[in-house]
Amino acid sequence: MQQAVETLTFRTDGTGLHEITDEVAGWVCGTGIATGVLTLFCQHTSAGLLITENASSAVHRDLVRWFDAAAPEGPGYEHSTEGPDDMPAHIKAVLSGSTLSIPVAEGRMLLGTWQGVFIAEHREEPLTRSIAAHLLGD
Amino acid sequence: MQQAVETLTFRTDGTGLHEITDEVAGWVCGTGIATGVLTLFCQHTSAGLLITENASSAVHRDLVRWFDAAAPEGPGYEHSTEGPDDMPAHIKAVLSGSTLSIPVAEGRMLLGTWQGVFIAEHREEPLTRSIAAHLLGD
Amino acid sequence: MQQAVETLTFRTDGTGLHEITDEVAGWVCGTGIATGVLTLFCQHTSAGLLITENASSAVHRDLVRWFDAAAPEGPGYEHSTEGPDDMPAHIKAVLSGSTLSIPVAEGRMLLGTWQGVFIAEHREEPLTRSIAAHLLGD
Repeated sequence: MQQAVETLTFRTDGTGLHEITDEVAGWVCGTGIATGVLTLFCQHTSAGLLITENASSAVHRDLVRWFDAAAPEGPGYEHSTEGPDDMPAHIKAVLSGSTLSIPVAEGRMLLGTWQGVFIAEHREEPLTRSIAAHLLGD
Repeated sequence: MQQAVETLTFRTDGTGLHEITDEVAGWVCGTGIATGVLTLFCQHTSAGLLITENASSAVHRDLVRWFDAAAPEGPGYEHSTEGPDDMPAHIKAVLSGSTLSIPVAEGRMLLGTWQGVFIAEHREEPLTRSIAAHLLGD
Repeated sequence: MQQAVETLTFRTDGTGLHEITDEVAGWVCGTGIATGVLTLFCQHTSAGLLITENASSAVHRDLVRWFDAAAPEGPGYEHSTEGPDDMPAHIKAVLSGSTLSIPVAEGRMLLGTWQGVFIAEHREEPLTRSIAAHLLGD
């Protein structure tokens, strides 16, 4: 049994879903661990990690619109010092979640056919996002 | 230290919560691993995995009604080619989450007294759903 | 490779976010495991576990207000026998999630600078809450 841990960094491009499936799959493959469990952890409170359909970018746009309607910008927030998109981003990050656990077999994440791994970027400006990755297995 | 990995399949019966606690507990027991961590991963983007009360089916119906009100069917979605329940199902799946991590001791999941493990089926038709299960421990 | 498992208990103080970062960090440190993966699991269906900003209590109050607006108390629930705050708490617990997986290195959780670990208490009365903690690594 062995483990690997590394911080992967990504540059997002404003609000939206930023797919990281290929980068994560490459890292998993490079560890040489064939069977195990992968943990991904988003080290930010205004972005999240989620699994959704990887084929249709319309799904991604509909998801972003849903989040915008569920936690709209506006004057109703007590925490407003970091910009109008900040408190909505904290709410969306709680809803999208900070962490994913994905079983790995034969060196590959056991994703379904139509699944991809995404950073849900909830801020408006492009940002560098750190994802802590940990793989344990053999 | 050892690990077990298997894909468990379930037949859901339309929109609702489908309890899988007993099947998962049976699989955990059958691995012979007494202490460890269980990962469950839903390999679909229109269904989720969640923990909620196992005693009252009224709780399950209220949860389903809440999801329906939060992401209703309607003309407002760009992604509409797979049926009116498809894009709402993707949104609900993100909210309910794709993965659970549950500590195991003495061969049993450390669930609270009133907790059950459920597939949240967000599509209307009965479907076969695959849950990747991974247990690591000794 | 070794593992540690323990049930940590906390006393919440009514609806709100109850930070447990220091207690969890202390437990991780005490296991002597330097590198691994930490699983936290909330053994209740009316409270959750989440990661959010640790610096501004205004963020916490805004989050609580958002949850209250998203799942308000009212006459619309079928499950109403355990008090008006019970079914909203079950919904909020599903949204906030039951479980967290956090990579550990050098004996510390790999949290981002502004991240804390919180019990999201969704009931109104103070309660004792049990969090199952599991750490696997070496």
